[in-house]
Amino acid sequence: MADLTLHNIGELTTNDGQKTADGCVVVADGQVVFAGSAADAPSQDGNQVDCRGNTVLPGFVDAHTHLVFAGDRSDEFRRRLEGESYSEIAAAGGGILATVEATRACDADELFELSSSRVKRMITAGTTTLEIKSGYGLDLETELRILKVAKRLGEEMPVTVKTTFLGAHSVPPEFKGDSDAYVDAVIEMLPVVSEFADYCDVFVEHGVFEVPQARTVFEAAAEFGLGARVHAEQLSHLGGAALAAELGAASADHLDHATAEDARALADAGVVAVLVPGASFTLGSPQAPGPMLLEAGCEVALATDCNPGTSYFEAMSPIIALAVVQMGLTVDQAVRAATLGGAVSLGLDGHGTLKPGAPADLMILDAPSAAHIPYRPGTDLVAEVYKAGQRVA
Amino acid sequence: MADLTLHNIGELTTNDGQKTADGCVVVADGQVVFAGSAADAPSQDGNQVDCRGNTVLPGFVDAHTHLVFAGDRSDEFRRRLEGESYSEIAAAGGGILATVEATRACDADELFELSSSRVKRMITAGTTTLEIKSGYGLDLETELRILKVAKRLGEEMPVTVKTTFLGAHSVPPEFKGDSDAYVDAVIEMLPVVSEFADYCDVFVEHGVFEVPQARTVFEAAAEFGLGARVHAEQLSHLGGAALAAELGAASADHLDHATAEDARALADAGVVAVLVPGASFTLGSPQAPGPMLLEAGCEVALATDCNPGTSYFEAMSPIIALAVVQMGLTVDQAVRAATLGGAVSLGLDGHGTLKPGAPADLMILDAPSAAHIPYRPGTDLVAEVYKAGQRVA
Repeated sequence: MADLTLHNIGELTTNDGQKTADGCVVVADGQVVFAGSAADAPSQDGNQVDCRGNTVLPGFVDAHTHLVFAGDRSDEFRRRLEGESYSEIAAAGGGILATVEATRACDADELFELSSSRVKRMITAGTTTLEIKSGYGLDLETELRILKVAKRLGEEMPVTVKTTFLGAHSVPPEFKGDSDAYVDAVIEMLPVVSEFADYCDVFVEHGVFEVPQARTVFEAAAEFGLGARVHAEQLSHLGGAALAAELGAASADHLDHATAEDARALADAGVVAVLVPGASFTLGSPQAPGPMLLEAGCEVALATDCNPGTSYFEAMSPIIALAVVQMGLTVDQAVRAATLGGAVSLGLDGHGTLKPGAPADLMILDAPSAAHIPYRPGTDLVAEVYKAGQRVA
Repeated sequence: MADLTLHNIGELTTNDGQKTADGCVVVADGQVVFAGSAADAPSQDGNQVDCRGNTVLPGFVDAHTHLVFAGDRSDEFRRRLEGESYSEIAAAGGGILATVEATRACDADELFELSSSRVKRMITAGTTTLEIKSGYGLDLETELRILKVAKRLGEEMPVTVKTTFLGAHSVPPEFKGDSDAYVDAVIEMLPVVSEFADYCDVFVEHGVFEVPQARTVFEAAAEFGLGARVHAEQLSHLGGAALAAELGAASADHLDHATAEDARALADAGVVAVLVPGASFTLGSPQAPGPMLLEAGCEVALATDCNPGTSYFEAMSPIIALAVVQMGLTVDQAVRAATLGGAVSLGLDGHGTLKPGAPADLMILDAPSAAHIPYRPGTDLVAEVYKAGQRVA
């Protein structure tokens, strides 16, 4: 007995074999029972939704966000675009440490309220699974507060949340000039924060954390059961991707400056390449080599990188548009990366697909094909969103 | 006696002097009576709207659209991005002539239904004034049908519409290889179409219409009272901008390849530069030199160029984001261009401002400043839209 049947689907993307026209999805107990050609559907009872020739695809899996934060950096954004340098802005109290200051000053309920408004818009825009990083606390108390808020978002809102401890996001003022001491402090946070985190992440970049420091953090985190996600090769080529491959990380993220050698290493090690074209767009820097990473055999994921400094995107549709128009992914590659790719990076079996047994996380687009997402980049086409078979937007 | 008072405005942009904090807008009989600091407001009665520190600005004026069309070219978009050349696509029946074929086959009511759904989304996204071009008919009957549908959109929907006859958009199949004969045919349409058009436009481009052909059309159109808008210097530098300056056109549009000399000529002649960053984004081509045009003294407008081939944008907010992030306009320049700039190009005095006597066309953003529009490029921040003082979205 089905609870829900979506019929008259014009283009059905299941990430489980071919696309189907005249598609049908049958849901029972929050899971997909059947997704395919209507002619083959076993039963079509329950609540009936006529998709009127529109598109159905899995809910978006946004595998890289920093969405739990306080403060407003729009003025800094404005000043940067009007020619002020990042170092001038940082010297005037701007940059990531401005967000750290605002987030430290914000209690858990305020932080939840700010963050849940972002997550609500994300769900409305089709996201059903989210990764959320800490990293705007940089001390034990605030990192813990951020991770708890992130977990609470997943408990109280209709979205699956995986959390990542990013204590090594930046060196806080208290440790200015002594990143080794701060690395030690990060490692000391692990016994406590690991209770609320699924992964650990380090921003591997010149002037932030070097590869040996990152290796130390990841090895310590592994002892507490945390998988690795690596901010790698964003602003320069430093070796974060090779480290991710060496460690068998869950993901290497950004990768704007990844080489063909990095791509092969990531593919061989089964590390998902999580690409964030919104950051490159905002910064006016070149897009990551998505086609090259796919060519090398990497699983690619797309993510918003939602953060108040360099990529304040919430919806995944514009990210798909950027990936297609600016990065050179095909529509099919981008849609897979925005759904299944993210789920693979988060170890969520079945998520990002509509195969039998998968959670019935899906959306109906007000368009005859998913190609309309990048074809109509400024228009929100997400008409209905379902989480575990329940309509949530 | 006021009908409507918006108070507690965090950032008020009037395009009539300075920005104001703690702003207030008072509306009576559909017009702005006062916009400025709350302390100076003469009366604050009528329906009260508490803006709770959010931003108020004039409604967007989208000064360049081709939104009355039928058909779907998403598959062509997909193929082009996957490497197929435009000439291969055109040879297979794609390109602008595919839209012409679909539009010719569509009766007025169908065309109105398709177009009004676009306009409805535009209004929800903050647009209160629109320019709409014909150009997907390329015969008298269909050009007339498009212009009548465009006028009907302005009559039946809460949006001011100005229409432009773009018979010279492309050479139709019936005149293949003989653009001079088609120019004569366009001129023969003028006595009839001019009743439903405010402006005339010509696509001045290598292989489409040359400058002398365009001059002939514009001079004939002027006799029927139609001002000139010119598709100029989009794909190459051909002299459309100089022609626009020579003719004292209302606008020169696109201008991706405009030179400093063009900019001075446009500024001297008072021709508004209508820039369409969505087209350059979609085509992956360089953005028009917006800062150079402003530097030369041009009034600059921003527009969606909403069309099914090269810029299927409906909302103006992502256009502002592209203008700021990719073209290099400041936030203030982009907001002015998206409001007052478009109104100047359409000869609509007062529109695009909130000065006393202007139509009360305005929006409330769910954000503390207009800088949030490009700062959060994937999020629709338009919370409430008013047309002539009436809430329409």
